[in-house]
Amino acid sequence: MKYGVLGMGIMGTPMAENLLKEGNEVVVWNRTREKCERPASLGAQVAARPADVIRECDICFTMVSDPQASHDVCFSEGGVLESICPGKSYIDVSTITPEMAQQIAAAIAERGGRFLEAPVSGSKKPAEDGNLVFLCGGDRSLFEEALPALEIMGKKSFYLGEAGRGAQMKLVINMIMGTMMAAFAEGLSLGDKAGLDQQDIIEVLAQGAIANPMFSLKGPLMADGKFQVAFPLKHMQKDMRLAQLLADEFAQGVSAAAVANNYYIKAKGKGYGDEDFSAVYKAVIDD
Amino acid sequence: MKYGVLGMGIMGTPMAENLLKEGNEVVVWNRTREKCERPASLGAQVAARPADVIRECDICFTMVSDPQASHDVCFSEGGVLESICPGKSYIDVSTITPEMAQQIAAAIAERGGRFLEAPVSGSKKPAEDGNLVFLCGGDRSLFEEALPALEIMGKKSFYLGEAGRGAQMKLVINMIMGTMMAAFAEGLSLGDKAGLDQQDIIEVLAQGAIANPMFSLKGPLMADGKFQVAFPLKHMQKDMRLAQLLADEFAQGVSAAAVANNYYIKAKGKGYGDEDFSAVYKAVIDD
Amino acid sequence: MKYGVLGMGIMGTPMAENLLKEGNEVVVWNRTREKCERPASLGAQVAARPADVIRECDICFTMVSDPQASHDVCFSEGGVLESICPGKSYIDVSTITPEMAQQIAAAIAERGGRFLEAPVSGSKKPAEDGNLVFLCGGDRSLFEEALPALEIMGKKSFYLGEAGRGAQMKLVINMIMGTMMAAFAEGLSLGDKAGLDQQDIIEVLAQGAIANPMFSLKGPLMADGKFQVAFPLKHMQKDMRLAQLLADEFAQGVSAAAVANNYYIKAKGKGYGDEDFSAVYKAVIDD
Amino acid sequence: MKYGVLGMGIMGTPMAENLLKEGNEVVVWNRTREKCERPASLGAQVAARPADVIRECDICFTMVSDPQASHDVCFSEGGVLESICPGKSYIDVSTITPEMAQQIAAAIAERGGRFLEAPVSGSKKPAEDGNLVFLCGGDRSLFEEALPALEIMGKKSFYLGEAGRGAQMKLVINMIMGTMMAAFAEGLSLGDKAGLDQQDIIEVLAQGAIANPMFSLKGPLMADGKFQVAFPLKHMQKDMRLAQLLADEFAQGVSAAAVANNYYIKAKGKGYGDEDFSAVYKAVIDD
Repeated sequence: MKYGVLGMGIMGTPMAENLLKEGNEVVVWNRTREKCERPASLGAQVAARPADVIRECDICFTMVSDPQASHDVCFSEGGVLESICPGKSYIDVSTITPEMAQQIAAAIAERGGRFLEAPVSGSKKPAEDGNLVFLCGGDRSLFEEALPALEIMGKKSFYLGEAGRGAQMKLVINMIMGTMMAAFAEGLSLGDKAGLDQQDIIEVLAQGAIANPMFSLKGPLMADGKFQVAFPLKHMQKDMRLAQLLADEFAQGVSAAAVANNYYIKAKGKGYGDEDFSAVYKAVIDD
Repeated sequence: MKYGVLGMGIMGTPMAENLLKEGNEVVVWNRTREKCERPASLGAQVAARPADVIRECDICFTMVSDPQASHDVCFSEGGVLESICPGKSYIDVSTITPEMAQQIAAAIAERGGRFLEAPVSGSKKPAEDGNLVFLCGGDRSLFEEALPALEIMGKKSFYLGEAGRGAQMKLVINMIMGTMMAAFAEGLSLGDKAGLDQQDIIEVLAQGAIANPMFSLKGPLMADGKFQVAFPLKHMQKDMRLAQLLADEFAQGVSAAAVANNYYIKAKGKGYGDEDFSAVYKAVIDD
Repeated sequence: MKYGVLGMGIMGTPMAENLLKEGNEVVVWNRTREKCERPASLGAQVAARPADVIRECDICFTMVSDPQASHDVCFSEGGVLESICPGKSYIDVSTITPEMAQQIAAAIAERGGRFLEAPVSGSKKPAEDGNLVFLCGGDRSLFEEALPALEIMGKKSFYLGEAGRGAQMKLVINMIMGTMMAAFAEGLSLGDKAGLDQQDIIEVLAQGAIANPMFSLKGPLMADGKFQVAFPLKHMQKDMRLAQLLADEFAQGVSAAAVANNYYIKAKGKGYGDEDFSAVYKAVIDD
Repeated sequence: MKYGVLGMGIMGTPMAENLLKEGNEVVVWNRTREKCERPASLGAQVAARPADVIRECDICFTMVSDPQASHDVCFSEGGVLESICPGKSYIDVSTITPEMAQQIAAAIAERGGRFLEAPVSGSKKPAEDGNLVFLCGGDRSLFEEALPALEIMGKKSFYLGEAGRGAQMKLVINMIMGTMMAAFAEGLSLGDKAGLDQQDIIEVLAQGAIANPMFSLKGPLMADGKFQVAFPLKHMQKDMRLAQLLADEFAQGVSAAAVANNYYIKAKGKGYGDEDFSAVYKAVIDD
C-alpha cells in the first residue's frame, strides 16, 4: 500500500513521518515546496501537484488548514479530481463542514473513486505521538482498508456512517466542550469572587466524577491568566455557531450552548479571538 | 483519640465502620436506635443522645440527610450544644448551606468548642470504600487533628478556610457539574436528531480532552433511558438554585448555569425530581 | 368613611393628599413625625403610633419602603396588630413578598380584621396624579369597600384573589419588564455596533406593534448614557431573583428571564445598582 | 412620475392599488399573469417582463415573497438588470438579507441606475390601509424622490444609510420583538401555573409602562390557544437566526435573544412553524 499526504503543516508533517517510520512508501505535496524537505529527508517522494500524488498512490490523505484549502486541493487545476478514478482512494482528515464533505464525496464518486472524510480530534502533540482520533464518514470499505494507516497515525478511529457524519460528530463534541469550558469559567469566576482559592477548585474537581484532562491542564493556566493558544478561541466560536445552525436544522433547542456561544462572541469582541479558547474565562469573569 | 458518629444512614454507617475497622474507639447515635445495631455488633458503643456522644468522645462527626436534621442534632434538646465545651470538637460532614455552617460555628465557638464543616463529595460506594472527598471549612487546628480519621474515611481532604467555605465549594462544584450534564444532554440530543449513534458520541468523548467518569458512566444509561437515582435531580436543582443565589450575592453573572438550572426546573415540573439528575436529558430532548 | 395612611414618604404623602383633596377625613402617621407636617397643614389628623391610626379609622393604608418596614408597622409594639379587630380594615400597598402578604393576612384574620395587599404599579408621578394601578389580593369585600379610595389614588384596581396574588402579579409583570429591557438593550447595542443610528431604532420601534412607553421614554436617555433613577436597578434585579424563585416553586422554566437576571447581576457587580434599571444597557453593550 | 410594481401578491396588490387610487400611472407585472387582472381593471398597465416595467417607468418597486424571488426578478433573463440604466430607479421593498441588498445595489450601480432597499414593517392590513413603514437603505436622492409614493403606501419612511441598513434594521427590530414575545410567553406561563388569571395579566400589562399593541392583540388569543398566522413562527425563527449571525459578525453578545431563538427552534421542532410566531407560547408553557 502506497500512501499520499497533501499538506505539510503542523499536523500533516508528523502524520507523514509516522507513516514513513513504520516503513510505508509515502508521497507528499505541499503548496509551498520547502515544507516537503524534511519528510523528503526521511524518505518521502515529493510530487508537484495533488493530482500527481493521487496517480502515484493507493490512498491519499489531505490535512490542510481550512475548508477553503480542502476545497482547492480537490477542485482546483492539478487537484485531486483530475486523476481520481476507480481504484484510487481519497481521505480528507481536515476539518470541513458536513456540506463540503458531501460535495467532495459526490464529485469523487462520480469519477469512480472512493472517499472518506476523517476529521481528527487532537492537535500537534497527539499528531506527533500517533494519538489522533479519526471521526470517519463515507465509504466503509475504504475505512477498513485505511485502518492500518489510521492506526499508525492515531489511537482510535470511528466509522460513523455516510460522508458528513464525521463533521457532524466534531461539531457535537466541540459544542459540548465549548459549553463545558464556559461552565468551568463560570465556576472559577464565582469561586474566586466568593473567596475560594482557584487552585483548590481545580484540585477538588480533579478528585470527582467530572475530573477530565481539559480542566486539569487548562485550569491552572486560566487561574494564572495564561491563554497560549492550543485551539484558537475564534475557531471554537465558529464551531459553536455551526453547532447552533445544526441544532436549528434538526430543530433541537440548545440554549446552554447558545449562551456559551455568546460568551465566545463577547470574548472575540474583546480581542481574544487568537488566544486559546479558554480565554473565554476573561469574558466570563468580567461578566 | 475517640470518635463519635451521629447518623447511621447510608453514608454514616460505612463511615463509622471504616473507623472501627482501623481499630478506633467509636461511639454512635441515631435518631431511631435500631440502625445502631450493626455498628454495635462491630464494636461501637451506642449513646442515647448527641450530647452524650460529645461527652464520650474527642471528635464527633455528624452525617445526616438534610440541613434541618443538621440543625436539630446541634440545637435541639439533648443536642451537641448541651455538652460541647473546651477540649471537645465537632465536625458536620452533611451538606448544609454556608449560612448554617456559620451559624453552627458561632454557637460552638461561644461554648469554647472547635468546629469544622466538611461536606463530602461522593456517595454510598465511595463511603464504603473510604474514598470520600472532604471539603473542610472552619477551625484549622481541628482539621489537622482530624486528618487521620478523615484519611480513613476518604481519599482526599481539603482545608478551604473559614466555616462556610466547604459549602460554597460544594455549590461551585455542583454548579459546574449540573451545567456539564446539561451540555452533555444537549449534545446527545442533537447528535441523535442529526442521525449520529449516541454510543459513538459517548465513545468519541471518552477518547478526548473532556473524557470524564460522569459521561462514561451515565452516558450509556441515558442513551438507554435509564435514570436510576445516584444523585436525585431535585437535589441538583436545589444546588443550582443556591449556586445562582451565591452568584447573585457576589455579583457574578452565570448565565450558562442559569439556563441549565431552568432545564432542571422543567424536568422537575415534568415529574423527574426523584430520578437521577441525568434525567434532565428527558427535558432537553423534548426541548 | 375615615381613612388612615401609614408612611409619609415619596408615595404615601401624595396618596394621603389626594384622599384629603377629595374631602375625606384622613389620619396619618410616620416613623419620623416631621414628615406629617405637610399633610397636617392640608387637614390631616396626626397619630402617634400605627395602632392609634387603626383605632381612629375604618380603613388604613400602609405605604412603606421595604418588606421589613411593612413587617414592623404590623407586628411591632404599637403596631397594627395591637388594635385591629372586627370592623377594622387594613390595606398594605407597599411591595412585599407573597409569603409576607400571607403572614400578615393570617395575623389580621386571627384578630377578626380584614386585610388586603395592594402593591402598586407606578411611582412618584402617577402617585401625585392619582394614576396608580393597584394589584389586590385578600378580602374581596374589603376590595369593594375600598374601591372609592383606590379610585381616588389610582386609575385602575385589580382584584386578583387571595392574599399573595398581588405580589405574585407584580413579580410576573416585572419579570416581563426586566426581560424586555434586556432585549431592548441587546437590540440597541447590536444596532449601534452594526452602524445603525440608535435614534432611528427607537423611532422605528415607536411605529410598530411593540411600541410602548418604556422604549419611548428610556430609549433616548439610554442612547445618551443617562440613567437617572426611576426604578433602581438593584430592585429590578431583586424582583428578577424572586420571579426566578417563583418559577422554581411552580416548576416553570423561564430561561430568557434567567439570562436577563444575570445581566442585572453583572450590572450590579459593575456598580450600577443604584442607577435606573435601564443601566443594564451598560452591562449589555460591554458584553 | 410613472411607477412600476413587480409582484402582485398579498402585499404588492394593495400597494399598486393605493398608487392608482391617488391618480398615478402604474405598470404592473406578476410571474403568473392572472394576478394582474384586478389592478388592470383599476387602470394599471400590464407588462410581460420585469425589464419591460423598468423601461416604461421612472421608479419601479418590487414586492415578492422571498430573497430568491428578489434575486430572480433582478438577475434572471428579462429581469431588471436588462433595462436598468441612467435615469431609471429600482426599489426592492421585499425582505432580503443585507448581503443581497448590497449585491443588487452593486449590480444596479454598475449599469448607472439608482437603487434603494426598503423592507417594510407591517403586513396585509397595513398594506391595504397605506400604513406600512419603510426601512430604506441605498441611494439618498432616490429616497427623497420616491417619498411621495412611499407616503401613499405607508405612514412613515426612514432613510437609514447605505444599502443593507434596511435589512439590518429589520433584523434588530425583529430580534427585540422575538425576545419580547418569549418574555411575554414566560410571564403568561408562570402566572398561569402560579394561579393567576391570564386575562388579568394582560389587563395589568395594558395599564403600565410596557403596554404595547402586540401584548394587547396577541395576549387574549394566546390565552385562548389561538395562533392564526399573521407572521409565521418559522419566519421569526429565521430572523432570530440571522440576527444572531449579525451579532456574531459584529461581536455583540445577545444571550437573551439566543435563548429566545432556541424557544422558536423548539417550537418549530414541535411542528408549529406555520402557525403565528406567538405559538412559541406552546413551547414555553411545556418548558
